Order: sequence, then C-alpha cells, then structure tokens
Amino acid sequence: MANPLCQNARVSSNLGLPNPKEDFSGWYNELVVKADLADHSAVRGCMVIKPHGYALWELMQRALDDMFKATGHVNAYFPLFIPKSFLSREADHVEGFAKECAVVTHYRLKADPNGGGLIVDPEAKLEEELIVRPTSETVIWNTYAKWIQSYRDLPLLINQWANVVRWEMRTRLFLRTAEFLWQEGHTAHATYEEAEEEALTILNECYARFAEEWMAVPVVKGLKSENEKFAGADHTYCIEALTQDLRAIQAGTSHHLGQNFAKAFDCKFVNRENQLEYVYATSWGVSTRLIGTLIMAHSDEKGLVCPPKLAPIQVVIVPMGRDDATRERTHGASDSMAAELRAQGVRVKVDKREKESPGFKYNYWEMRGVPVRIEVGPRDLDAGTCVIARRDNGEKQTVALAEAVATAARLQTEIQQAIYDRALAFREANTRRVDTWEEFEAAFAGEGGAGFVLAHWDGTGETEDAIADKTKATIRCIPLQPLDPGDAEPGRCVLTGKPSKQRVIFAKAY
Amino acid sequence: MANPLCQNARVSSNLGLPNPKEDFSGWYNELVVKADLADHSAVRGCMVIKPHGYALWELMQRALDDMFKATGHVNAYFPLFIPKSFLSREADHVEGFAKECAVVTHYRLKADPNGGGLIVDPEAKLEEELIVRPTSETVIWNTYAKWIQSYRDLPLLINQWANVVRWEMRTRLFLRTAEFLWQEGHTAHATYEEAEEEALTILNECYARFAEEWMAVPVVKGLKSENEKFAGADHTYCIEALTQDLRAIQAGTSHHLGQNFAKAFDCKFVNRENQLEYVYATSWGVSTRLIGTLIMAHSDEKGLVCPPKLAPIQVVIVPMGRDDATRERTHGASDSMAAELRAQGVRVKVDKREKESPGFKYNYWEMRGVPVRIEVGPRDLDAGTCVIARRDNGEKQTVALAEAVATAARLQTEIQQAIYDRALAFREANTRRVDTWEEFEAAFAGEGGAGFVLAHWDGTGETEDAIADKTKATIRCIPLQPLDPGDAEPGRCVLTGKPSKQRVIFAKAY
Repeated sequence: MANPLCQNARVSSNLGLPNPKEDFSGWYNELVVKADLADHSAVRGCMVIKPHGYALWELMQRALDDMFKATGHVNAYFPLFIPKSFLSREADHVEGFAKECAVVTHYRLKADPNGGGLIVDPEAKLEEELIVRPTSETVIWNTYAKWIQSYRDLPLLINQWANVVRWEMRTRLFLRTAEFLWQEGHTAHATYEEAEEEALTILNECYARFAEEWMAVPVVKGLKSENEKFAGADHTYCIEALTQDLRAIQAGTSHHLGQNFAKAFDCKFVNRENQLEYVYATSWGVSTRLIGTLIMAHSDEKGLVCPPKLAPIQVVIVPMGRDDATRERTHGASDSMAAELRAQGVRVKVDKREKESPGFKYNYWEMRGVPVRIEVGPRDLDAGTCVIARRDNGEKQTVALAEAVATAARLQTEIQQAIYDRALAFREANTRRVDTWEEFEAAFAGEGGAGFVLAHWDGTGETEDAIADKTKATIRCIPLQPLDPGDAEPGRCVLTGKPSKQRVIFAKAY
Repeated sequence: MANPLCQNARVSSNLGLPNPKEDFSGWYNELVVKADLADHSAVRGCMVIKPHGYALWELMQRALDDMFKATGHVNAYFPLFIPKSFLSREADHVEGFAKECAVVTHYRLKADPNGGGLIVDPEAKLEEELIVRPTSETVIWNTYAKWIQSYRDLPLLINQWANVVRWEMRTRLFLRTAEFLWQEGHTAHATYEEAEEEALTILNECYARFAEEWMAVPVVKGLKSENEKFAGADHTYCIEALTQDLRAIQAGTSHHLGQNFAKAFDCKFVNRENQLEYVYATSWGVSTRLIGTLIMAHSDEKGLVCPPKLAPIQVVIVPMGRDDATRERTHGASDSMAAELRAQGVRVKVDKREKESPGFKYNYWEMRGVPVRIEVGPRDLDAGTCVIARRDNGEKQTVALAEAVATAARLQTEIQQAIYDRALAFREANTRRVDTWEEFEAAFAGEGGAGFVLAHWDGTGETEDAIADKTKATIRCIPLQPLDPGDAEPGRCVLTGKPSKQRVIFAKAY
C-alpha cells in the first residue's frame, strides 16, 4: 500500500524550491504544493487540502478544541446558509463587512431541453436569496434570540468548526482562499465585563498559547484600531506574527461585540434585577490561514519546517540496503525503533520504498517538514549506531542504537523550543522604534516587508489612512503589553506630531 | 456557569413526549428538540445541531475516524462548490441523482440604491454556475485525474468530513435535511478486485461494526437492487436497521463505482504491464442521519436512550439537600465519586443546580439519554449507600458507597449490551418470511411499518417497481449472509412466480 500520509507522493516532484530570500512569494506557492499541503482546484479560489496538509490541520484542531473545552466551551453546528436579509440587520456589519459572497438563487437543475447538459431550472428560484456564510454572527444570533430568556440561560459558550466562503478576487493557498476552514466561537453573556473577560481568555489562554506553544510562532497580543476592527464589533483583539519576509500576519482575532448583534436580532434577557436587557456577545476565530502562518514563520529552501507538536510525522526512519539480506537487517532494526517510538506516543514512519535512493528520501521528507530523520545503514548497524538528522538546522549526529529512540524523542522538545527561539530572535531583530516621519517613510520605502515598526500615532482613523496611503503600512495592533517598557510612554504622532499615549505596531501585512 | 453540555437547558421544557406507540412521528420530532439534540433554523430545511447533539456526533466521528485510519485511510478536504458542468459528465450520475441542489449564480451583494438593504449585484454573475456539493465524486475525480499517473500512485484511500446540501422538499431533523454533515470516502484502485475488497472492508470493518458495537443497532449487510443503488455505481452495499415503528432505515452505503467516474473524468494510470487503464473507484458515506437512526432504534417515551459508548454524559450524579450543610455533604460525596469515575475515563456530570427538584433533574437527564444516574441523598449517606438507576430499563438499586463507582462503570458495558440485545430481539420478532402475494399484501396493508419481510423476487426492476406501487414496500437489500440458512435457497417470486435465487428484504423505509 502507498504511504497513507503522502499517498500521491509521486505527483509532486522534488526538484527544489525558489530561494525564499529572492522570491518569497514564489517559494511559498511552490512549497505548499510540493510539500503535499494543498493544491489548486477546478473551482476558482477554492483549494484542495491534501492529506499531509489536512493531517496538520487535524492536529491544530485537536489542540485548539482541547483548549476551548478546557475553558468551558462546547461545539455545535449552525446552517451553512444565511438569508440575505439577515446580513443587513447589523448596520456596521453590513457596511464594513466584505460583500463578496457566494449567493444561492436557485434550488434545482434540470436537463437542458436543447442539449445533453444541465441548466438551472428558472422555475426553482428562491424567494429570498441565501448567502453561503462568510461568518455566522447573524444566523447564530437569530438562533440565540430563541434560546435566551433569562440570566440563567447565560453564558452560552459555543464554538463551531465549519467552512466559510468569501469571494476574494486575489487568492493564495491557505492565506486567502474563497472557501476556507475555521472555527468560530460565539458566546453570549449577561454583562459587558464578562464578555470582555471571555474575549481576553480566548486571546490569552487559547490563541496566543496555541501560536507560541504549538506553532512555535511568537505573537504580539494587541487591540485593533477602529479602522481595522471587525465590522460590528465594539473592539477587536488579535495576535500578530512576523513572517520571514518581514510582513505582519494576523493569526487570530477575538471580538467583543458589545450588544450590537443582540440589538440587531432582538435578543434580550431578564437580568438578576428582573429587568430586560440586551445580551453581550463575543466572537472569535482562527482558520486554515494558520497553516500559511506556520509555513511563513519557519520554513526554508528545503521545504516545510514543522514544529514537532504539529508534525503529522515526527520521525522518519530511512533503512538502507541494496539487497534483501541487508534490507532484512535494516528494516528489522528500523521497525523495532519505530515500535518503541510509537509506544512513547511519537508519530513515526519507516520509509521502505525500494526504488527511491536514500538521498531522494531525505529530500522528500525534508520537503514535508519531518523534524527528525534516522538513517539506518548496514555499516551503521555493524558499528551498533545510526545517524540522526535534525530538520530545523540540518545537524547530524551518530548515536548508539540503544540511544536512538531516546535521542529522537528528546529532539522533539529541543526542536520545538529551538524554532520558537529562532523565530523570536528574528522578530526582535526586525522590530524597531521610529520617531520621525523621515525615518518612518524610509523604513517602508522598499517593495517588501519592513518588520514591525513601533511608532507613535495620534489615535485617529484619518492619520492611519494617511500613513497607509503614503507607505502601505497599517497599524497591526496596539499592543496590550509593551514589547519594551518605553513603548508604553506617551509621545508625538509620527505623522501629525499630535499627542500619543503609546507606541503602536506598524507593518505591511498579509 | 451554566452546564456546558446543555447550556440552554431551560429553553426545552420537560413536559413529556407523545406516546411513541401512538404517534411515533410526533414523538420523534419532539424528542429531537427536547433532548437538546437539534433545532430548526431560520433557513428552510437546515438544522441547528445543538451542543448535546453535536457532542454525540463528535463521539461518532471519533470512533469512525479511528476505524478509517486503522484500515489505512487518511483525511483530506475538497471544495464545497462543483462547477455545474461536472455534474453532467457521468451519465448515470446526472440521470439518477437528485437534481435538487443549491445553485450559486452570483458572487457579490451591494447596497440597494432604492433602500437600506442589500441586493444581489447583477454585474457579479458567474460565467458558470456552481453547485453546493450534494456529494463529491465529480470534484474529487477531477482532482484524482491530476494526481494519478501510475499504479505506484495507487491505492488512494481518502476520506473527508464535510457538509453537503440536497434541496429536499420534505425535511425532518437528522433524517432528511437540506444541509447535513457526513463523511465521504473516495478511493482509487488499480484493479476491480481491490476496489471490491475496499467496498466490503468499509461495509464490514467500519460501518457494520460501528452500528453494532457503538450504536448498539443490529444491521443487515446487503447489496442494493439496481433500482436502489447509487446513480453512477457499479453496485452498492448498505447496512439496514429496523426502527421501533417497524420501518427500515438505511444507515450507511458503500459503493463500488467501477471505472465509471474514471472514464467520465479521464483518469487513467499506467498499470504493472505498462498499459494505460482506467482507475477503479469506491465511495462510501455515513451522515448525521445516524443520530436519527440511533434515536429511532432505542429511545422511549421518556426521551433519548443513548448507548453508553456514544453518550456525551455517561453518568449523572444528583446530590440532594435543602440546606447548605446537607449539600456540603452530598456535593462532597458526589464530587469524589465523579473524580473517581473521570479517572476511569467515564464521562460524568454532577448536577448541583439548587432551584430544580431531584424529580425535575431525573426527568431532565432521562430526556437527554444519560445511561446511569446516581442519587446521593443525606439519608443514603447516613446509611453509607446511594441509589443507582439505569436509563434503559428504569431499574434502581441501592448500593454501598464504596461500590458505587465500580457499579456505575460496570453498568456502561451491561447497558451497551442490553440495548443491543433488545434491539436484536425486536428485529427478530419483526422479521418474517412470506411466500404468497396475499400474505405479502396483507403484511404491508397498514399505514405504518411492517418490519422486515423476507420474500422471493425475480430480480427485475419492473417487479420491484410493481411491488412498490402496490404496497409501498421496497427492497431494502439482498442480504450478503442469509439471516436464516433457508433464506439462501431458491424459490418463486412473490409477485410474478418467476424463479428467485434467494430471499430479499422488503420493508417500508425512511
């Protein structure tokens, strides 16, 4: 049987990738396909998530789902379709939210009387068009209004794992696709304070922890400016990461929605004082975009570098040997190592393909981001050793066979930490503070990304727009904790010179 | 915080259900909502799966997913949308498959120039309409044609968990909804024999085992007649269960697709003899309909009866006490039992609500199908005992506190077996063999279901249609193993008197 995790292995050639330092965009696009993470589909802007990419997503889902449940949430499922009129109910939501949606207008096909194909049956037109959900606040709050009557029905702490569709004009695999997979939490609370606590719990206990502890991606936790917040939110929190081409990427958002959606869908409850009041809400989401974030934070010219905690295969064992007798020995040694690793909960694969050379296999599994490789050759076995190679830094070491399993297991922890440390050092080296407009313009003068630039801002949307017009830099967030104590001190806006309470992060963004 | 599994507990009243013996349909519809499994949504035919129902679905998914992976399958994800022209490619598929689909014709909304709402932007019309997938053979085989070149790329053993949409006119929660959740496996093979083995592996090792060992629902494994097979399949296997109102319900299907889709999407491979050949295929699926099956197989006038292996809550502990001092004792004893049960992997809930009476709580958790209840009252504690009640048969026993945990854990296994045995005995009592048309017509004369009727059939679609016209009974399957040895012996068709190879199962079906 073919290798189940990369069943269609032979389709992607292993001919190498563009140099990410010269062509980051081309490098990314090729890596996604060659590492068997995703592929383009016949439907414009929609992707196929391939088995190796989906295995990564399943590990992400499992970790996040555990975190949501540990913080008191449950899962449910709401309809894919939203009546068109629902989208108009919340004024800011309809005004600010993308109107590029997939619109269902008919519910039947019929045989074309003039030919062999199918046509849309004109008699099967819907009275009201349905929108494929771009996000589910409206359909969920329409339901919550039925479910919530009293403070005793609160809080509702519900999450859903779902597909959503936003008809993006320019798409890129994982980063921006017409259809993507995500989770969306939608919670209902009796007080503003409780909703605020919820939005921050998700940001701190789930999203930031997941990014840092699982994805090994350091993130800044911050507040979005009014211009950048979710349309319909009171305010939006986010986590922002830095890619290797020095752009910011938003990895997750947590919105305090205030009473906006409750008002739009007339969702009131009887509070403890026996008065009718509108319910407070949050919503929060992360998506398959996290896979794009992970790739852009860690990977290299050889392919994916995957943090061990999320690697579908954590250890690959490559037994060598050109004849049956030799293979019997190396396969036997490899199988017993694999069994020991599996018993310790390590996800392991023994690559016994006979027609591919060891070199081919090394490249193959490096492309797919396997953190640790064990090479088992006949001379190694004679010497009672094997070779262990790290994906993150390419280091190889010869270890005694008896130590191999312990070493491979220990390296999982070491590599997880090492790639986090490297990403953090990279971010720190590419974070600077700028105080004059000249410096600011110079920082963002090039075509590419410019890292995180911490500067003062007068707090107005007009200034933010003016800065974006001049430099393409936008405010990624207002950090909740200063990256450096001085960042929290007041100053003067880098463009207008007006007073500023603290530095904010500017960057070019994905 | 509200109970997270039934956060909106107070919405559903506990006022009891219709008698299932008198009004099975009304009983089912009310049970689904009152047991917090699902709810109707604002979108015609689309359901909201509520947290308790979704928790059940998650347990089903986990068990099935483990089975798929144990048999060598991996997950992936394919697009929600299918270009309209794809649906016309496989002639039988387009001819026989329901044309009731959600059709996306536009990709943008805009503000209505004549009012405050949104209208569909007439300028954003798609060149080719997109269909929301009713099933994914076409879009997947379009992709496989890119992935498969050689026998070395085979087999491809891929599954996806997804939502699908079929615009059903008459919908019922879980049984038939416009949108539902399912898994669909799509595999590609080098030979007919290997595809056949795959279709049977899924039927035997996954679907039938899951139905019997997890859902505690006995099923007949069989082959569909030509009339009933999947449009586009060479042949279709299925598992069929019997509901308490004596109807058949199809719980899962596994299709051998032959080379039909490979031909439609020009998917050829170079075989071992270096010749180009079309790929062989299977597809197979089970859906949220399984929840409907489970309800109809086991539940009663008090609500859901859930097999312990799939129960979101397996043990509920109800501590009593009208004053703080008493509650301190009963809560303490309950918490320590709960901790012990959790340590053994039992899903347990302590219901400490103060405003609800014990009787209310008993009804409440019986409605939601919790298999075992432990009642902890102050007098019980004085006597060093507690009361344990079974959901399946209502039996109560007083046990020593020291035995409570072991008893509650042991009852999980006993109840799982007991409800399976009961369902099997029920099916056997309602399976009969009929040899004359008079008897056959009499068997199906009433409005309701008539159990499984094993009769001879001449093997033609015309006869099957004629029988259905006269009696509303259809062939549910041709059993792969005879239920009774005599069923495999030849005979004469119950309608036409023509020769028949074996008895087949007739029933009225959901």
